[in-house]
Amino acid sequence: MMLKGQTWEFTSKPSILASATVVGPEEGQGPLSGDFDYIYDNIEINEKTWEKAERKLLEQASQLAVVKAELTKEQIQFFVGGDLMNQIISSTFAARKLGAPYIGVFGACSTSMESLALAALLVDTGAAERVLAGTASHNCTAEKQFRYPTEYGSQKPPTAQYTVTGSGCGVVGKGGSGPIVARATIGRVMDLGIKDPFNMGAAMAPAAADTIEAHFRDTGLTPSYYDQIVTGDLASVGLPIANELLQKAEIAMDETEFTDCGLLVFDLKQQTYVKAGGSGCGCSAVVTYGHILKRLLNRELKKVLVVATGALLSPLSYQQGESIPCIAHAVALEMEG
Amino acid sequence: MMLKGQTWEFTSKPSILASATVVGPEEGQGPLSGDFDYIYDNIEINEKTWEKAERKLLEQASQLAVVKAELTKEQIQFFVGGDLMNQIISSTFAARKLGAPYIGVFGACSTSMESLALAALLVDTGAAERVLAGTASHNCTAEKQFRYPTEYGSQKPPTAQYTVTGSGCGVVGKGGSGPIVARATIGRVMDLGIKDPFNMGAAMAPAAADTIEAHFRDTGLTPSYYDQIVTGDLASVGLPIANELLQKAEIAMDETEFTDCGLLVFDLKQQTYVKAGGSGCGCSAVVTYGHILKRLLNRELKKVLVVATGALLSPLSYQQGESIPCIAHAVALEMEG
Repeated sequence: MMLKGQTWEFTSKPSILASATVVGPEEGQGPLSGDFDYIYDNIEINEKTWEKAERKLLEQASQLAVVKAELTKEQIQFFVGGDLMNQIISSTFAARKLGAPYIGVFGACSTSMESLALAALLVDTGAAERVLAGTASHNCTAEKQFRYPTEYGSQKPPTAQYTVTGSGCGVVGKGGSGPIVARATIGRVMDLGIKDPFNMGAAMAPAAADTIEAHFRDTGLTPSYYDQIVTGDLASVGLPIANELLQKAEIAMDETEFTDCGLLVFDLKQQTYVKAGGSGCGCSAVVTYGHILKRLLNRELKKVLVVATGALLSPLSYQQGESIPCIAHAVALEMEG
Repeated sequence: MMLKGQTWEFTSKPSILASATVVGPEEGQGPLSGDFDYIYDNIEINEKTWEKAERKLLEQASQLAVVKAELTKEQIQFFVGGDLMNQIISSTFAARKLGAPYIGVFGACSTSMESLALAALLVDTGAAERVLAGTASHNCTAEKQFRYPTEYGSQKPPTAQYTVTGSGCGVVGKGGSGPIVARATIGRVMDLGIKDPFNMGAAMAPAAADTIEAHFRDTGLTPSYYDQIVTGDLASVGLPIANELLQKAEIAMDETEFTDCGLLVFDLKQQTYVKAGGSGCGCSAVVTYGHILKRLLNRELKKVLVVATGALLSPLSYQQGESIPCIAHAVALEMEG
């Protein structure tokens, strides 16, 4: 462990021993369908409430990740998890089922990388040998809680994003053939005054840019060090803004592939309902633990920086006229050899 | 750093450099009034909404802790915080004001010790030199969100607890004359099927007992090692249940003083409204960072184990008939010499 600014350099090679992703039907119709472990054909996930559906996604992905790591749940020493639901209740129920000591976290859609960064920290420092990190979201729980009941069928502007129905989990430990968690940058809260909850991409872009800038300032690396830098989830509105902010800060992002989990997870043909792209805790989680990990494991990619963004608003803060505080946490994944 | 079971033994002596507490009028009328840094004479905290009031408590306590540590806010490398509000929005706004990289956590009323455990972990392992940990709650935001608008004046059973209006924060670093954070035990989710949100003490008691049992199993210590073991917040209903569970587990709690933050913070004469005792993220935070720290610093106590309990339910999970999942995280504070 070496601290550089707001970045942790993990020196003892914590790695992702195994990961698992479980998604809903719309994600299963997207371009990454081949990268997920299990795809439900119904958005109810065979459950009676949206909340039970979300919980099931996380419970299944977490259990599957443990099985794929060839471990028993008793061997998981800590579970670091969180989600978008009030009081992160989906993660708590998953933790109850798992039975492991539980570190509940919240970073909205950045929870995927907040939990992975902490899990890697625990393993790197000897605070744990095997940690499960994970998160989930469901389109209909998020709509219900943050916006309107889906039954209203309310229309949305093209800047709106579509919450991913899915869960991604990873087991962090040492050894194995999975990617190393090389370093992590913990983000600051950025708030440039945007108040429109249907334009999360624009609200979150400054947080992504700030964390990316901090990452390169802290590490002395340049963007070309990575094969790919993937934000999550700025989508089609936020990514160009982040890019522009980084150009202004003279971070040469054009040297590397700069893309976004919210753009990767859905197809252009799904745009009628996904609008600007995907979002939600599950978005960067299923793209990272499904798609990116697969590309790392088959060596299409060797070094990837995942910069998960989160809009930390609450429905109440928005209703009371507050602007949207945002954050981004970055984690670098690298294949050895 | 040494991992023993679910307990972290901090080996490089992370300590609380300074702490601060800001409370409302009812806490100021309680027996610990002399231990708090600032007491508001109005529960509105001079703000127009309950949410702004809660946020202000946390912003002020965090700033005051930094000042008392003779640091600038730029020297705080990470803020680990959370609260009871949906999307932990109070902590997020405090993090925005502070400007430090932010690790958002949620453990309901156990957040006080979850955040302190993580802050100590960061400092102990070299992942940070100076970390701020803190949380807050406000009676009226909690009532509004979890129960009924206070304006209803709804009656409560004697098992109900009263959410503390207050915030407690601590700066963790190395050196200084404050207590050492010697070890921490991260709890598991315990749920014995209790569904009554007006009886949190009974729901949380098994979590407290489980974490205390784990703490002594992991460390090989016995209760008599500590001058005081303080749960937070089991209050008058939960504490005897936890005690009974520990007796059954043959943990000899009678060798040490066993008490509870929810009992310490209010007077018997306040019982007409506080019922079974205090609760809320702020309860164990203000008792620990105010009262207990003071008693440690003046050496009335030398070794204290704070076992903060959290009821992790959401209003929605309760409405959907789910039982109340609970957790407890324990942190040991010790004066040297």
